[in-house]
Amino acid sequence: MTTESLISEIKKKNSFLCVGLDVDLEKIPVFLLKEEDPIFSFNKAIIDATHQYAVAYKPNTAFYEAYGLKGWQSLEKTIKYLNENYPEIFTIADAKRGDIGNTSSRYAKAFFEDLGFDSITVAPYMGKDSVEPFLAFENKHTILLALTSNEGAFDFQTKKVGDEELYKHVLKTSKDWKNSENLMYVVGATKAEYFEEIRKNLPNSFLLVPGVGAQGGSLKEVCKYGLSENIGLLVNSSRGIIYASNDIDFAAAAAREAKKMQQEMNTIIDGIR
Amino acid sequence: MTTESLISEIKKKNSFLCVGLDVDLEKIPVFLLKEEDPIFSFNKAIIDATHQYAVAYKPNTAFYEAYGLKGWQSLEKTIKYLNENYPEIFTIADAKRGDIGNTSSRYAKAFFEDLGFDSITVAPYMGKDSVEPFLAFENKHTILLALTSNEGAFDFQTKKVGDEELYKHVLKTSKDWKNSENLMYVVGATKAEYFEEIRKNLPNSFLLVPGVGAQGGSLKEVCKYGLSENIGLLVNSSRGIIYASNDIDFAAAAAREAKKMQQEMNTIIDGIR
Repeated sequence: MTTESLISEIKKKNSFLCVGLDVDLEKIPVFLLKEEDPIFSFNKAIIDATHQYAVAYKPNTAFYEAYGLKGWQSLEKTIKYLNENYPEIFTIADAKRGDIGNTSSRYAKAFFEDLGFDSITVAPYMGKDSVEPFLAFENKHTILLALTSNEGAFDFQTKKVGDEELYKHVLKTSKDWKNSENLMYVVGATKAEYFEEIRKNLPNSFLLVPGVGAQGGSLKEVCKYGLSENIGLLVNSSRGIIYASNDIDFAAAAAREAKKMQQEMNTIIDGIR
Repeated sequence: MTTESLISEIKKKNSFLCVGLDVDLEKIPVFLLKEEDPIFSFNKAIIDATHQYAVAYKPNTAFYEAYGLKGWQSLEKTIKYLNENYPEIFTIADAKRGDIGNTSSRYAKAFFEDLGFDSITVAPYMGKDSVEPFLAFENKHTILLALTSNEGAFDFQTKKVGDEELYKHVLKTSKDWKNSENLMYVVGATKAEYFEEIRKNLPNSFLLVPGVGAQGGSLKEVCKYGLSENIGLLVNSSRGIIYASNDIDFAAAAAREAKKMQQEMNTIIDGIR
């Protein structure tokens, strides 16, 4: 998907909501467990119920790998379902991959070509030649970890490298990589006070923002400094939406929570017009 | 597996060779492609032929994910085959994972419990709470990326954080994490000049050393400064061994190359006794 298509979908829906599909068999409604593929059945119901409020879906691969072959199959079915039924929706493989060049190419092929994701999250630690193989794919997006939402972000990411924090050094350095126009960045909602400076450095880049809701981040705070001219944000919510109910009404409850977030986003977008 | 068992296997075989099972269907012998599971057939033959010279096997997950469901199945069969037939051999999932706490727990469960790997490689960028879920597993080992073998290592890993390089800061900081006795580190063979200092900081830790062979690293150089009292090294070779021939003799050729490395290692071990 082109960035333009993503922006147009955001404007059409007045939403920059990303729904995190982090499926845990212990948290989904019990009656789904007798289905042939409970994870896919759950995802399908959630997607069908929330798609009018969301512009992106983000399965985290850990939750699928945790169920081995079956989990991998559920992931394949989920992305196929999204691409066939909602091709206008941006898809993110939250995989946090990254390896030496020829190996990163393998991951890129797996997620972009074979599975058909629009984007993948990638860790920057191994540097340029570990990321560029992902950037080489046209109209595919590489979402580089910059400042993550967890406490551990303060262990290395905010440490000073020369006169700037490591995450800023990552932002700056990566702008010079080949096909860097295909880069987006992960910035945690729990680090709202950092958004002003990040936006100054990256006026146009899209930021994928986890950490709203269960992790404690505030949508308003993030938007205050994080919004760009083209919105430029994808704010993710996982648990707050997909586990709004674990009863027969789970999909309707998820839709209600997604709608609530979309309306908050709509109000914010209206406020800056 | 306990570290003691690994050390005892190293001493028994006079080898600290790790064989990287990075299987590419375009590089394996053509006649294997008609097998039901060519990747597993290839791995089985390589393992059977080289196991007396190697103490560890390391499939890189990218090469399996690149083949989707079938690849994941081949990975499962490979680790199962290793654990059932060669339980004395140390197994490494070269997965370079790492995510926020509850997500890292998922990866740890998948690789340690379900697949049954002895260890996994993990990226340090997200800090302590992204790594500790892996460290929580008893007799399982977390191999943290420190100084990798690729050129991109110089983008961030060798940048000064305060008065020390980032990778040194990673080494030092991680020693204070809970269950840090379960840590090992990745240090690339292409960075041989760094081993002396690293060994000073980590006199007893095991280092997983990729980059010998195709990537240009030298076994002698690595050993000169990298060996510890208990050897403390796992030196990996992938392409140089598994693709020594792509004809009917591929397993014998792999055995020959593995034996050559084991003999070099034996000579080095004898030299320090």
